[in-house]
Amino acid sequence: MLLESIPQPVDIYEAHKRISPYIHRTPVITSKTLDELSQCNLFFKCENFQKAGAFKSRGACNAVFSLDDDESAGGVATHSSGNHAQALARAALLRGIKSYIVMPRTAPIVKIAAVKHYQGKITFCEPTLAAREETLKNLLQQTNAIEIHPYNNYSVIAGQATATMEIFEEIGWPDFLVAPVGGGGLLSGSSLAVRYFSNHTKTLGAEPEGADDAYLSFHSGMIVPSIHPVSIADGLLTSLGSRTFPVIIENVTEILRVSEEKIVKAMQLIWERMKIIIEPSAAVSFGAVLQYPEIFHSSKTVIILSGGNVDLGCLPFAAIKENMR
Amino acid sequence: MLLESIPQPVDIYEAHKRISPYIHRTPVITSKTLDELSQCNLFFKCENFQKAGAFKSRGACNAVFSLDDDESAGGVATHSSGNHAQALARAALLRGIKSYIVMPRTAPIVKIAAVKHYQGKITFCEPTLAAREETLKNLLQQTNAIEIHPYNNYSVIAGQATATMEIFEEIGWPDFLVAPVGGGGLLSGSSLAVRYFSNHTKTLGAEPEGADDAYLSFHSGMIVPSIHPVSIADGLLTSLGSRTFPVIIENVTEILRVSEEKIVKAMQLIWERMKIIIEPSAAVSFGAVLQYPEIFHSSKTVIILSGGNVDLGCLPFAAIKENMR
Repeated sequence: MLLESIPQPVDIYEAHKRISPYIHRTPVITSKTLDELSQCNLFFKCENFQKAGAFKSRGACNAVFSLDDDESAGGVATHSSGNHAQALARAALLRGIKSYIVMPRTAPIVKIAAVKHYQGKITFCEPTLAAREETLKNLLQQTNAIEIHPYNNYSVIAGQATATMEIFEEIGWPDFLVAPVGGGGLLSGSSLAVRYFSNHTKTLGAEPEGADDAYLSFHSGMIVPSIHPVSIADGLLTSLGSRTFPVIIENVTEILRVSEEKIVKAMQLIWERMKIIIEPSAAVSFGAVLQYPEIFHSSKTVIILSGGNVDLGCLPFAAIKENMR
Repeated sequence: MLLESIPQPVDIYEAHKRISPYIHRTPVITSKTLDELSQCNLFFKCENFQKAGAFKSRGACNAVFSLDDDESAGGVATHSSGNHAQALARAALLRGIKSYIVMPRTAPIVKIAAVKHYQGKITFCEPTLAAREETLKNLLQQTNAIEIHPYNNYSVIAGQATATMEIFEEIGWPDFLVAPVGGGGLLSGSSLAVRYFSNHTKTLGAEPEGADDAYLSFHSGMIVPSIHPVSIADGLLTSLGSRTFPVIIENVTEILRVSEEKIVKAMQLIWERMKIIIEPSAAVSFGAVLQYPEIFHSSKTVIILSGGNVDLGCLPFAAIKENMR
């Protein structure tokens, strides 16, 4: 059964136990060079190495494996053009149930291929939120599948919280934990884990300046929808949800807005210095450290590298190179 | 003192002990997806995570720390436009001696910056082998520095051999060990370690088809110079040396020639599936597995990922993407 209220400590523990057979316990790595550059002590939680390439596998697995046999008989469904789509398809395949994924017809070929690889049944729709929701609604009626929302779902939130549990087990309590924020599943889950399992860590959200709905929501006290967001961090363009927003308001210290320049710089530094692939959305947290050095100076800070699914045919570095010359 | 003859088992052991404080013991990682794709059991030795971004730090550290105080008083020198340049500059900095690096004036800005970062003293020259050798010769006369050749040096070869020692300690003996071959430092060192420390592993070299001087040398029994080599794998364009070639002839089973298409495909797969950055030269070994599946089918095979220093402003993936459409 899916959780019906804000995850409690036991729910996060249970989630971790439930999903452990199906996910990687990802490494936490450090970089002397980036520590020197940013004048603080950084720990990078590598969810880019997670199954299906992103932390989304945690939430999707927790939701799918929380369903009892009757509930799951009709399969699961969602609309997503991103990492949740493949994470959910993979979780359903592992559970032996069907998954129905509504994707905009403009979704990148690699993402479509990944969902198909995990035997997800794709329904294409026009690339608007209205079309996605309408198509999903019809699908749910036709199939009897259960909707697993990418973030506005307490079982998903509990799943995303497990990354932070692993961090504390591995390195103790940091001063700051920085997670990117799009719909808020990772940030709300992380902030709950911090509240329950750390005695002094502050949770910070990191968001592109060009998609700063979470910042505006956080400071106005009500959900401000993301309208015409523009950022290379394409996983962070969504609005907060009714279940993530209240958790974030209560447990997050601040939302930091990060410029496109700092996002690309952060991505470049991590690729060049740490030799690992992260997607633009995953670079925003380290971008916040670059943009607000005064906050992080001399601190012990955890950066959640949320995913590593990039389109290699469409990278931002060529332009940088030109600017250098 | 630098080694004056082919490294013996004890020399490789000593080298490992000598360099351990200065290098990373790099991880050996696996990928279920790439195992399925290539129908064998692959282990990737991640020298892309090595200090200064490549296995070259092993050989450079072993050479520099083998010198006694008198020998090293004048510093060390080399000509290199690649990973050896920064590895040597770093090793010298750690030892507290000077390093003189001859670089072609066309060397990539990032490589020049890396050498400067390690306080190497750069002398620029025209981008020809003759100019590089002449400039280095003059430098050696002026400075009393000791030349540390990138590969034609037994202490360097012994240093490169240490990666294979670590592999055996970690995963036992594979059926095959595949290393890229340019000048042959890594391949000769690896093949010696295999001969001394494994009872059944076969060592294979992997080389771009467009720079197949090692293949031609191996099969003709004499060093065939690399003339007008063309490959994206820019670390593998050099010719074998008088000290690497005899070791390779005696201890390597075969040199496999790899097409540019398979090199780029291998690089793409490792970036996309393993989420780690490797340079084109490091992709050639896995490219060999893709190109010669009949050799590797069902085997336990180690791939040495030799380095991770790429120019992000100049990547081969845009073209691939276009071809996919």
